[in-house]
Amino acid sequence: MVEAVADIGLIGLAVMGQNLILNMNDNGFVVCAYNRTTSKVDSFLENEAKGTNVVGAHSVEELCAKLKRPRKVMLLVKAGSAVDAFIDQLLPFLEKGDIIIDGGNSHFPDSIRRTAELEAKGILFVGSGVSGGEEGARFGPSLMPGGNAAAWEHIKPIFQSIAAKAPDGASCCDWVGETGAGHYVKMVHNGIEYGDMQLITEVYQIMLEGLGLTHDEMADVFTEWNQGELDSFLIEITRDILKYKDTDGEPLVTKIRDTAGQKGTGKWTGIDSLDRGIPVTLIGEAVYSRCLSSLKDERTRASKILKGPTAPKFSGDKKAFIAQLGQALYAAKIVSYAQGYMLMRQAAKDYNWKLNNAGIALMWRGGCIIRSVFLGKIRDAYTNNPELENLLFDSFFADATAKAQDAWRNVIAQAVLMGIPTPALSTALNFYDGLRHEMLPANLLQAQRDYFGAHTYERLDAPGKWVHTNWTGRGGNVSASTYDA
Amino acid sequence: MVEAVADIGLIGLAVMGQNLILNMNDNGFVVCAYNRTTSKVDSFLENEAKGTNVVGAHSVEELCAKLKRPRKVMLLVKAGSAVDAFIDQLLPFLEKGDIIIDGGNSHFPDSIRRTAELEAKGILFVGSGVSGGEEGARFGPSLMPGGNAAAWEHIKPIFQSIAAKAPDGASCCDWVGETGAGHYVKMVHNGIEYGDMQLITEVYQIMLEGLGLTHDEMADVFTEWNQGELDSFLIEITRDILKYKDTDGEPLVTKIRDTAGQKGTGKWTGIDSLDRGIPVTLIGEAVYSRCLSSLKDERTRASKILKGPTAPKFSGDKKAFIAQLGQALYAAKIVSYAQGYMLMRQAAKDYNWKLNNAGIALMWRGGCIIRSVFLGKIRDAYTNNPELENLLFDSFFADATAKAQDAWRNVIAQAVLMGIPTPALSTALNFYDGLRHEMLPANLLQAQRDYFGAHTYERLDAPGKWVHTNWTGRGGNVSASTYDA
Repeated sequence: MVEAVADIGLIGLAVMGQNLILNMNDNGFVVCAYNRTTSKVDSFLENEAKGTNVVGAHSVEELCAKLKRPRKVMLLVKAGSAVDAFIDQLLPFLEKGDIIIDGGNSHFPDSIRRTAELEAKGILFVGSGVSGGEEGARFGPSLMPGGNAAAWEHIKPIFQSIAAKAPDGASCCDWVGETGAGHYVKMVHNGIEYGDMQLITEVYQIMLEGLGLTHDEMADVFTEWNQGELDSFLIEITRDILKYKDTDGEPLVTKIRDTAGQKGTGKWTGIDSLDRGIPVTLIGEAVYSRCLSSLKDERTRASKILKGPTAPKFSGDKKAFIAQLGQALYAAKIVSYAQGYMLMRQAAKDYNWKLNNAGIALMWRGGCIIRSVFLGKIRDAYTNNPELENLLFDSFFADATAKAQDAWRNVIAQAVLMGIPTPALSTALNFYDGLRHEMLPANLLQAQRDYFGAHTYERLDAPGKWVHTNWTGRGGNVSASTYDA
Repeated sequence: MVEAVADIGLIGLAVMGQNLILNMNDNGFVVCAYNRTTSKVDSFLENEAKGTNVVGAHSVEELCAKLKRPRKVMLLVKAGSAVDAFIDQLLPFLEKGDIIIDGGNSHFPDSIRRTAELEAKGILFVGSGVSGGEEGARFGPSLMPGGNAAAWEHIKPIFQSIAAKAPDGASCCDWVGETGAGHYVKMVHNGIEYGDMQLITEVYQIMLEGLGLTHDEMADVFTEWNQGELDSFLIEITRDILKYKDTDGEPLVTKIRDTAGQKGTGKWTGIDSLDRGIPVTLIGEAVYSRCLSSLKDERTRASKILKGPTAPKFSGDKKAFIAQLGQALYAAKIVSYAQGYMLMRQAAKDYNWKLNNAGIALMWRGGCIIRSVFLGKIRDAYTNNPELENLLFDSFFADATAKAQDAWRNVIAQAVLMGIPTPALSTALNFYDGLRHEMLPANLLQAQRDYFGAHTYERLDAPGKWVHTNWTGRGGNVSASTYDA
């Protein structure tokens, strides 16, 4: 009879799994490690886990036998069928009340499905977003657990102790919400990460191509930015990257092929936003920018065919313009997070989740890739007013964008004239200007649809009353039904 | 024994169906009309179809009995389950070689499925895009048939005679391609239509809010534009709409609620483009703009909180600026069509369709909502070079954008400073500038991903070689596998 010695079991010994185990061990928890290729278990115990309390298992049965009740098994395997396969392998060795945690990058609809399927079997499922990369996993990740709420009390001690800590000591992990809420919020987090990275690359290109700064000069700019309102992990690593020299003394970044891959989570956010009808334009443009970057050969041919601006290069005060760049980056970032929260608000409505907006900001505050001082301000905004309709309506952010907008507008106007693409910076401003317009030109669009498709339109002076106008005097007066022109 | 008198049967007597029947009748074809609510058949025969050769049927069985072999039945019913339901009802009364045509706005994956399912039963399925609204259906629509190629010879005489004719007399209908190609091309057409409409509303808002033109003055601008390279149906109807006065003498368009609905086909295009990784940014922004327009109450509250630019109103030469607006509209439109063709190119690759690019431009040249002189130029471009990699690479369009770009840049810079949103005009320019950049800043993005996720990157001087750099000196040198930060 094997003795139940472990507090939690972890399946999947890739980097993330290994580092999470070592993190749990550091925090006093006994972890049982298992991997499909069992040789990996042995090498892990003999090397990375040497001298720790980590125990190993060479079968799923042995793993489950070594776990204290209720059993807690965390999966860190490839999202998709592998997760379902391991769940099926585990079930014969689990009892009612045991807990299965999926810490992979699963698509939230799968987590919604798995929560229901396992609840029917008496097993508590948790789909948890895990962010922070290797470093985060090892020394404190951002954890976003959601699923079967009954599981929270059992995993809370482990999750909150291994998670990153905000500067005020608060753990960057809290219960996100029901069913797929954890993986949904992680998806939006990744989408926002796509946006933050895209914004940084756009200001990089403006400084490089428009202002002709050297990489060391740019590193100095990011160093300065990292001491103010832009203080964040991505600004910090960008500083390090810009400084890093290749063996020939050139900045290593200039030797890297400019085609960005995408593993799909940003794409998921974009598709989800279109599906829900929420204008998450900055993430959308960030994803499209990666798509365009991957068309390297087509761009190379285009560069020899398509003409650039005849306008002169930048000829103003570089130092002042760099300060404006920082303002533009900050304002666009505010818009991106406001859009992300608009999307989560809609999803919560669609799935009847009770999302804790302040808690989400706290979970992102530390440990993860988008961690920043800025997220503390977002937590404050939602703590001060849990019913805040839009992040941009919070006085701090309304003032920040009002203060930044002139600089933001000038940066985009200059980039447009210099021929430097700024899809994310631009769409953020367009959204900001669109949102603050009580009247948008969609009235003309509705007239067009009524003209050619008899779609009817609503009159401003008669809300709820839909009418059709026979704009031409020709054709019928009937309204289109099955037809969408 | 009922006599087979009809050349084709049509199911679904909403506006589109009625008008298509009358159009077929005008062209000498005998049509048998059927509708689930059979009273609609009688009223149609007694009214709209009075004095024509149209015959009616009160059951699917009677309909099929009245059709000459091979039977041709066209469905104009609500996309989705209704189509499958009618197909199931028809099957018992059809023979091998008979043809079912779905003329509704079906999503292309359904047409791919139906083509295969019916082919297995010996029935030839055609999924056909139908565009042009009521007017088009009645006097000449744009038809985009795809599916089982064996059906084309049988329906070609009817389809090509009822379709619109281009100025040179060519019919705006040709065989698009296999399985779901017809509905796919129709979907992209609708997405492009979303983009064209959005672009027009943006220049409308600039003229209204930025230049302070009256609606009659704007109507004059559109009248002039409609005589040049922008000559198109949408410009033409916009002119009519701007002129149209309400009973109180005010422009009717100013009385319309500025919230645009969307029946989903534009959304489908946006989602499909994200799925295929093709940067169809203008349609994406057009869909998001409709989403933002529908948040009217939130915008109204935002208009009282968010600050606009402190920059002065427009103070230049209005006449010259209006000319630049036309150039910006034209250039952005070229980009939108180039993006649409990039998407169709990728889909053709994914589904192994042989799409006729020039033929598609011809089908859109007349009859449909996006019909324009411009599409004749696109047909020419693909006729001159069927292997054209990108529409923007065609000398005519490369010259047109080169000629327009300075005006285009100035328009966007001005709008940005005036605080008028131009999401579609802007994203088009950003795409143009991105495409002509051999080097985009995605190299920095790849460095970031390698820094925090050990995703590895490709060196420009060693294509195909993916390496990881330990940017910090800390942490492991392993590469992330299951993890996507």
